[in-house]
Amino acid sequence: MKTGIAASKGYAIGKAYIKKHVELKISDSRVSDIPLEKEILKRAADKSKHQLHKIRDKALIDLGEEKAQVFDAHLMLFDDPEFIGAIESEIENNSINSLKATHVVTSGYVAIFESMEDEYMRERAADIKDVAKRLMNNLAGIDESIEIDEPDTIVIAHDLTPSDTAQLDRTKVTAFLTNIGGKTSHSAIMARTLEIPAVVGLGDITEVVRQGDMLIVDGIEGTVIIDPDEDTIEKYKALKLVFEKEKEELMKLRDTKTVTKSGKRVEVAGNIGKPEDVLKVIENGGDGIGLFRTEFLYMDREEMPTEDEQYESYKYVLEKMGDKPVVIRTLDIGGDKKLPYLVMPEEMNPFLGYRAIRLCLDRTDIFKIQLRALLRASVYGNLKVMFPMISSLNEFLDSKKLVDECKAELKAEGKEFSEKVEWGIMIEIPAAAVMADELAKYVDFFSIGTNDLIQYTLAADRMSEKVSYLYDPMHPAVLRLIKMTIDGAHSQGKWCGMCGEMAGDETAISTLVKYGLDEFSMSASSILRAKQLILNEE
Amino acid sequence: MKTGIAASKGYAIGKAYIKKHVELKISDSRVSDIPLEKEILKRAADKSKHQLHKIRDKALIDLGEEKAQVFDAHLMLFDDPEFIGAIESEIENNSINSLKATHVVTSGYVAIFESMEDEYMRERAADIKDVAKRLMNNLAGIDESIEIDEPDTIVIAHDLTPSDTAQLDRTKVTAFLTNIGGKTSHSAIMARTLEIPAVVGLGDITEVVRQGDMLIVDGIEGTVIIDPDEDTIEKYKALKLVFEKEKEELMKLRDTKTVTKSGKRVEVAGNIGKPEDVLKVIENGGDGIGLFRTEFLYMDREEMPTEDEQYESYKYVLEKMGDKPVVIRTLDIGGDKKLPYLVMPEEMNPFLGYRAIRLCLDRTDIFKIQLRALLRASVYGNLKVMFPMISSLNEFLDSKKLVDECKAELKAEGKEFSEKVEWGIMIEIPAAAVMADELAKYVDFFSIGTNDLIQYTLAADRMSEKVSYLYDPMHPAVLRLIKMTIDGAHSQGKWCGMCGEMAGDETAISTLVKYGLDEFSMSASSILRAKQLILNEE
Repeated sequence: MKTGIAASKGYAIGKAYIKKHVELKISDSRVSDIPLEKEILKRAADKSKHQLHKIRDKALIDLGEEKAQVFDAHLMLFDDPEFIGAIESEIENNSINSLKATHVVTSGYVAIFESMEDEYMRERAADIKDVAKRLMNNLAGIDESIEIDEPDTIVIAHDLTPSDTAQLDRTKVTAFLTNIGGKTSHSAIMARTLEIPAVVGLGDITEVVRQGDMLIVDGIEGTVIIDPDEDTIEKYKALKLVFEKEKEELMKLRDTKTVTKSGKRVEVAGNIGKPEDVLKVIENGGDGIGLFRTEFLYMDREEMPTEDEQYESYKYVLEKMGDKPVVIRTLDIGGDKKLPYLVMPEEMNPFLGYRAIRLCLDRTDIFKIQLRALLRASVYGNLKVMFPMISSLNEFLDSKKLVDECKAELKAEGKEFSEKVEWGIMIEIPAAAVMADELAKYVDFFSIGTNDLIQYTLAADRMSEKVSYLYDPMHPAVLRLIKMTIDGAHSQGKWCGMCGEMAGDETAISTLVKYGLDEFSMSASSILRAKQLILNEE
Repeated sequence: MKTGIAASKGYAIGKAYIKKHVELKISDSRVSDIPLEKEILKRAADKSKHQLHKIRDKALIDLGEEKAQVFDAHLMLFDDPEFIGAIESEIENNSINSLKATHVVTSGYVAIFESMEDEYMRERAADIKDVAKRLMNNLAGIDESIEIDEPDTIVIAHDLTPSDTAQLDRTKVTAFLTNIGGKTSHSAIMARTLEIPAVVGLGDITEVVRQGDMLIVDGIEGTVIIDPDEDTIEKYKALKLVFEKEKEELMKLRDTKTVTKSGKRVEVAGNIGKPEDVLKVIENGGDGIGLFRTEFLYMDREEMPTEDEQYESYKYVLEKMGDKPVVIRTLDIGGDKKLPYLVMPEEMNPFLGYRAIRLCLDRTDIFKIQLRALLRASVYGNLKVMFPMISSLNEFLDSKKLVDECKAELKAEGKEFSEKVEWGIMIEIPAAAVMADELAKYVDFFSIGTNDLIQYTLAADRMSEKVSYLYDPMHPAVLRLIKMTIDGAHSQGKWCGMCGEMAGDETAISTLVKYGLDEFSMSASSILRAKQLILNEE
């Protein structure tokens, strides 16, 4: 039995398909014929584009528009003069071979994106890695495509790229196993999207399993059994049945109101990054949107999104949710999230720096465009707006003053907006949690952002390998601050939600219900299980 | 009247002496004769060394051994192959002139040290700037030496370097005024050491004042009056008299026990960085040492200090203080303080990373050397040891386990140590303040490190220009956490001190006395004034 990181729940019994993995050998050899080397690069790029067009078309049919768009992004990279141009310059200036040049240029990009905390940004790193690998494989003449003929196939790979997973035949693949990766690596996220079990970070699974081996994958414990005996197979078949039955049971909770045994109504909402994500929240029976991160309207583009573009996105989500609440967080840029069209200061500790509301109150020109778009969209649903990184009352009052300015402008322009919008704040800075009872007098609601709150409370950056062991949601100080925040809200008759990862953590839910948390917001896939747990709480 | 930043208290009336300031013109011109250019560099370096020897000898007589050592450090730079060698390489590799090469190399060093928060490290930046300027002036044939003949001279300069201030005739200079700088710039620190008034950051004072102008300097308000009338002069003469009388009054408090009007004994102690600093604390009537930062034993050297070296330093301070308490903080390295002989991870947010107790518990080999040295020194005085950056109980218990190991080792080796040492923790991470009541059950005392506590509580790096406005010691959340910490200590019969800058802040003292703070530790020069304020509190 091998043990790795449980990345996607469920059980699978099937035959191993080991993805070909040819080690890329990158030599330092110099080239003398620069034009020839550039031609080699061009041909490999063309071949890559041809492959990507095919993958894109397949993804469009198999996975839908949204997943297919990933490959449009890959294709765009090949047309980006900064990308291919940088590799060409590397060849020209240093006379190095095209393979090495590609490696140098792309590993720089990857390192930048991988160092970011945000899941979406790390997915970007996976994309660039994927493009780089494709281009380098084509330069080296390596073919790693996956072809699966039989059902119940368990795919085993060193790692799986977005284009690997897009090519998989979903009717035949029943689980993933990889040597590397963690809970938030691309293959883990993909497995959860496809709802098939996966174990990642297995170290040497590609070495110890042979093609065609019989395997059992336990995506709950994170284990793999190689060549199991009949009894074991029977046991896991039974477990699989129970698991699937439970899943069905969960689906029945879709339209159930979440009320604890003692009769307290608790909302279970979803976190979204892109407007389309709202569909998955609805599919999983979310009571609302507890966090719409608006950064992604601003990213991956060359200029600021216009008021109308933003308005359309907010309107889309509000309309889809009907009268259910939609909490939209204003721009939280800075820290590890930068925009190409916005100059940001170089800071020694960006997490303690110029970001979120600090940037918005400094750049009111940017902020007001968003506030106007939010107000205009407010007539289409049940909008609640929250400001991120609030450390003191002034920041909230200053933000509200800008809201009033925007309202006056809209009125003058004859544009509609709702007066029923609630205005709240994220509680993610220790100062705000400590002062929650006072802040509650002024705001309509709180939403606790546990990821940052934990980092600041413990002074530990969870992305720093050397101190990530300190990052502990159940640290008694963190729990006390959460309790203070909830009590603070209730003391003024306001509601308190939570939209950090902790809200979806099964081991934390019971404690949070006891503390009186009113709303839990989490990734769509965790909603049903959370509902079930809360229904069983006192 | 001109207004700048009040950098050193007091009043002065005297005549302006404007320091010559010749703008250095650094051209990009290339050189063809590399050996000649290197010879030019060598001659300028020799001339600089000659000047420095003279300054050093003068400083030894005028300012004492400690201040003179600064110039040994300057001289050492000229003998450091990495320094002159780097400039030579710059000349060789890029055929640039020696002036430009010196500028390129030194501005890199300066930028590194200036970005550090620690006052000592920023003084290093001033030193390197000073050396660079000397060398460049000598390369360009510029002479900026200061020669003062008359008493009551007010020195005006764009900025003052350590070698400028060392050359000043203290019997003749009565104040400093500079265009640039802030409260912690070298000229400000030097003025406070010399106990003469200074106003810095005046912008263009070198332009608006003419040589020999009559001036009044108000180092309390941070103002300068040019060509004052007789009435104004009389008024300031009177103010000066009052100020000096108050200073005398303060000196009388040297041996007074600090007790509030209601009879509560409060200790007013000093913060020190180097063993010799203890003398200034004694001179200013400190009740003890509230913070001995031990980092400086580890810095500015090529290898780890030995157990014996550390032992000697601790013993020196303990013996000097007699039976008065000496709180020594264990190594707080990392963050913005690095050691040349210790490999540290690159972190995106070093303030939220691998530093202080986190590093020490990881590198117990380094930590145990310090703990052994502390234990061995403990027999020479009233030692209290505190651990920095504690975020949870485990870190304290793990540290105490290492202390026990060291005690067992020393016993086996027949070496003495005291069993009366108190073991405490710094409260500088929000989690520790929030859990103070629990932590107080295990530790002997707390010392609140406000600089970090404020930064983490407000998630604002005060070194980041864009957010430093958020850094507010009187923020209600900060005050609540301080109160929680003091109450937590007292609930278990333990004492609570404070060693951050806030402890010496005249506007905060009253609040802190009301909260019940038992010990205030600050820079030596603030002790007497703090004593006076506390004596007047209820």
